[in-house]
Amino acid sequence: MGRPREGRVDEAIAAATRALLAEQGYARLTVDAVATRAGVGKAAIYRRYATKQEMIFTAIMHNLELAAPPDTGSLATDLAAVTRDIVANLATPPPGVVTGLLADVHADEAMAAKFAATFVAAERACVTEILDRAVTRGELPHRPDPAVVHALLLGPIFAWLFLLLENRGTLPALADTIAATVTQVLDSAASPEPR
Amino acid sequence: MGRPREGRVDEAIAAATRALLAEQGYARLTVDAVATRAGVGKAAIYRRYATKQEMIFTAIMHNLELAAPPDTGSLATDLAAVTRDIVANLATPPPGVVTGLLADVHADEAMAAKFAATFVAAERACVTEILDRAVTRGELPHRPDPAVVHALLLGPIFAWLFLLLENRGTLPALADTIAATVTQVLDSAASPEPR
Repeated sequence: MGRPREGRVDEAIAAATRALLAEQGYARLTVDAVATRAGVGKAAIYRRYATKQEMIFTAIMHNLELAAPPDTGSLATDLAAVTRDIVANLATPPPGVVTGLLADVHADEAMAAKFAATFVAAERACVTEILDRAVTRGELPHRPDPAVVHALLLGPIFAWLFLLLENRGTLPALADTIAATVTQVLDSAASPEPR
Repeated sequence: MGRPREGRVDEAIAAATRALLAEQGYARLTVDAVATRAGVGKAAIYRRYATKQEMIFTAIMHNLELAAPPDTGSLATDLAAVTRDIVANLATPPPGVVTGLLADVHADEAMAAKFAATFVAAERACVTEILDRAVTRGELPHRPDPAVVHALLLGPIFAWLFLLLENRGTLPALADTIAATVTQVLDSAASPEPR
């Protein structure tokens, strides 16, 4: 296949990871196989990712340069946009990948702590930015706890897909419900006389 | 140790499972070791549970005779009670057990379908009962989708513990926030002129 140019190596690794996950599933994926498929050396992978799990997370979810969705002009529509992003990330990987990765990350305390400090922190920054925009617009008098909002947005989608094994066809409707729920609760907490 | 009487076998298996999970973690647990520790035959375990995963879920979460929390007189307090039950179930198992179990269940499509039809269905029945009580009391004009309510209650707690790796000390406060959020959204959807 020839070696991709340095600037394309990230994408070659991610594409090879996604292709092998789709073909072989999570448990059988090796860094060696990804290197071969991507046409890069193993060292190129380990320069970028300390572990196989970081490589996989980056390929199926997002990297650390995660940006919040563009400002849509309101808290409600910003929350809807970020919720749709979460749906896209969680619903796209082949069966078994998200749950296999989660188990491996939790089996290693140091890895779990690193994921929290990197990938989760990158997501948290997006949630925080959306809340800060709402404060700047005057929609919220002060910023609610981004950790709680993050859990309220992400949790139900994860539960729908991986805990409750519900119908994926209704995910878009669920995402809208979640975004509307969180908006409503933040709005009413912000108003001087809720309800 | 002597063999426990038939009626106590369920509890002996569950206690042995919990003890071995705490000592050895999820990955190393075998049905053989549980049988030995419980002082029962392996056949006694496989009469009750088709798979090791069913045995573990029953020991750390709940069995199929799950009952909704007692009627507390209002939707808000019923939702708070069931949310506290979810917190207790998810926060109690030793590290790696919930995520390891989830990965194994998802690695086997038939097992995942069986879990949905048994354990998840038992939880869903509790959520449904709580919503039906609210309809009977006149708090809600009709029953909202129990699947959505289930996801809204369970998801953020799972996310807090296993996706976001947040502080466990604030779980009780989070549980109250979740129950209040869901109550508010159901209330306002129920009222003819929300907000």
